[in-house]
Amino acid sequence: MNAEIITIGDELLIGQVVDTNSAWLCEHLNMYGVRVQRITTTPDDLHSIIAALSEAKGRARVVFVTGGLGPTKDDITKAAACEFFNCAMRIDAAVMQHITELLTARGIPVSPTNRSQAIVPARCIALHNNEGMAPAMYFDAADTAYIFMPGVPYEMQGLMQNEILPLLCRKKLVQAIVHKTVMTYGIPESTMSDRLEKWELALPAHIKLAYLPGPIALRLRLSAHGPNYDVLKHDIDTQIERLKSLIPDNIFGFDDETMAAAIGKNLVAHSQTVSVAESCTGGYIAHLFTSNPGSSAYFQGSITAYANQVKMDLLGVKSLTMMEHGAVSRKVAEEMAEGARRVMNTDYAIATTGIAGPDGGSPDKPVGTVWIAVATPLLTVAKRFVFGVNRERNILRASMTALNMLRKLADNS
Amino acid sequence: MNAEIITIGDELLIGQVVDTNSAWLCEHLNMYGVRVQRITTTPDDLHSIIAALSEAKGRARVVFVTGGLGPTKDDITKAAACEFFNCAMRIDAAVMQHITELLTARGIPVSPTNRSQAIVPARCIALHNNEGMAPAMYFDAADTAYIFMPGVPYEMQGLMQNEILPLLCRKKLVQAIVHKTVMTYGIPESTMSDRLEKWELALPAHIKLAYLPGPIALRLRLSAHGPNYDVLKHDIDTQIERLKSLIPDNIFGFDDETMAAAIGKNLVAHSQTVSVAESCTGGYIAHLFTSNPGSSAYFQGSITAYANQVKMDLLGVKSLTMMEHGAVSRKVAEEMAEGARRVMNTDYAIATTGIAGPDGGSPDKPVGTVWIAVATPLLTVAKRFVFGVNRERNILRASMTALNMLRKLADNS
Repeated sequence: MNAEIITIGDELLIGQVVDTNSAWLCEHLNMYGVRVQRITTTPDDLHSIIAALSEAKGRARVVFVTGGLGPTKDDITKAAACEFFNCAMRIDAAVMQHITELLTARGIPVSPTNRSQAIVPARCIALHNNEGMAPAMYFDAADTAYIFMPGVPYEMQGLMQNEILPLLCRKKLVQAIVHKTVMTYGIPESTMSDRLEKWELALPAHIKLAYLPGPIALRLRLSAHGPNYDVLKHDIDTQIERLKSLIPDNIFGFDDETMAAAIGKNLVAHSQTVSVAESCTGGYIAHLFTSNPGSSAYFQGSITAYANQVKMDLLGVKSLTMMEHGAVSRKVAEEMAEGARRVMNTDYAIATTGIAGPDGGSPDKPVGTVWIAVATPLLTVAKRFVFGVNRERNILRASMTALNMLRKLADNS
Repeated sequence: MNAEIITIGDELLIGQVVDTNSAWLCEHLNMYGVRVQRITTTPDDLHSIIAALSEAKGRARVVFVTGGLGPTKDDITKAAACEFFNCAMRIDAAVMQHITELLTARGIPVSPTNRSQAIVPARCIALHNNEGMAPAMYFDAADTAYIFMPGVPYEMQGLMQNEILPLLCRKKLVQAIVHKTVMTYGIPESTMSDRLEKWELALPAHIKLAYLPGPIALRLRLSAHGPNYDVLKHDIDTQIERLKSLIPDNIFGFDDETMAAAIGKNLVAHSQTVSVAESCTGGYIAHLFTSNPGSSAYFQGSITAYANQVKMDLLGVKSLTMMEHGAVSRKVAEEMAEGARRVMNTDYAIATTGIAGPDGGSPDKPVGTVWIAVATPLLTVAKRFVFGVNRERNILRASMTALNMLRKLADNS
């Protein structure tokens, strides 16, 4: 089944509110095999709303509409629905009773404004809103059905889960779909697409691949549509196995797992710990670890050694090393990692030292130069990188690259 | 001028990515007096894209299109543009040079996939993308102009600010506007709106106030529209002076200056330094400081003392204090701050110790309990807070609250 979404509200068109309802609806409809083919956002304006409703007619099997059902003057979705479906308003007795009960329980008298929420277009079926007063409104039809919901996210979500999806299931309008997202790091999008080209072209027609690039991962999303959920799941798993053999070193997790969390899981499994010594990444690696619940099981601590004196005093970097090699060097990175491992008594330690920018570069150490070291129980490895000129992204890329180095070394030890 | 937005991408229609680009575009276009009358989201599908482009023609003066400009097979926006504008592709020499320079600087050879990003529809003007490879594409017309941008948020934002808004100004499609954003912290939105009510009602008609609440600041944005830029600037400055007298302790900066940057500026002015000892904030305060260019002038370093042993070994927290008071206590916070100040030899130090969640709470120390201490050359101050149950927001709120405590103490010393 195909569907469209119409979201209504001036606040969406002046950028005051980000439309998270559409993403939520898409995600949940997709799980039920519904393909959302278009999202349209319109202002609280009668003409615009009716135009959007008309355009979707015949194009989609079901149109999901959110917003504009509040009791205030700027909410005119119900008036638009009446005009579009050519019907009058009626009072819904069940909704009226729900509103009365809700307010009575709170000791609030029922005002005319409250009462107005029980007034709905005559042609709709009102669906019970467990989380608020405004009901959802279902307009059945053999070609295009319309479902109107309030824009308040938790009310919309409750209505979808309790009333609307069960209704669509009963009407046999929804089918099966399976997604799996593969989290990769270390291969840029264009190289990845070259490397996966043959496999991608050989994918069966009912499986689609999407590249979702981003600073913390290049995500590869596989989606399969079809009548049988178990078959789809098996088909996706088969493709994932092929993918694993093509990029064995670059998959760190699945379905939006972060790299720090993946590393943490592995450390916990081996009863191992990690610490961090950061210069140019300035605490960001520690933040990536500690963003995960339960990170105290493997993350002992970190030292952000921004000043050279701190590198020497707290991490034991030798002043001679500092003088001979400079703070941004293989030797200092190594001594930082070994120092962190020693003073915080961990199995592994990561260290970064570099020039995040925008200033501080030189011809042989340009902005973006970063030395990253990883100390393990067996050896210390260091590598030089040259990232870009943007400070924020250099911090992020150096942090992710450092985590990825640890991931590869820790997996193999 | 009226406008429409078309966002392209399968990921938006399966709910994997929330469309934040539209809200950003709406907000920024609105500031320039542009009224966005519709947002349409379509999949990476030739027919759907062309349909959306056609429908907007004649309805809007400018159509802003984002997404689908990557080098991979699923990105087909350029092909759709060629068909819609009835033109062939051409190689853009300037874009080709930009791509070559970008990759050469990183020591990466230019692949055919990279090269494909310099291929654009023949009828467009390619606009330089400072943050990535894919250019924006401008199709001029007397009725409806189209602007295509990459979907990566920072690339789209950079293109809007550096290329597209200036272009629209030159074409007189947008009018003169002056904005100033006042960064405040410590007063919730509803209290602020009560406190500023009289002043807000007395604002001249051409000046508008917007409340932009968020976790790192409550921003107050003043916007003035009119024919004369200098007059607008003067009018805004007059209002800012009035505002300062109404909330003297809560303004920490202007125009998206961060609190860490504001503190840094003040420290530099007094030739003073700061260090940090973090437990529950896990490196995030260090990250907030080091995100600012030039922070090495005042930020010496930090110790993320996640494990209690690290608190004792590196910060000198006494084991007796730990036993008697527990890690989340006034005494430990104070000893951490004093320890950081001592071992990193700074004028000020901040310390945090608390329960970020979701687990680890107890009846008298629920999740969200955080002790924050600030050590100064004269005294050490500690305060207890109880934030919420969400780990991410607790880390952020504890970090911002700690910075605000330092800001107030450092200003007055």
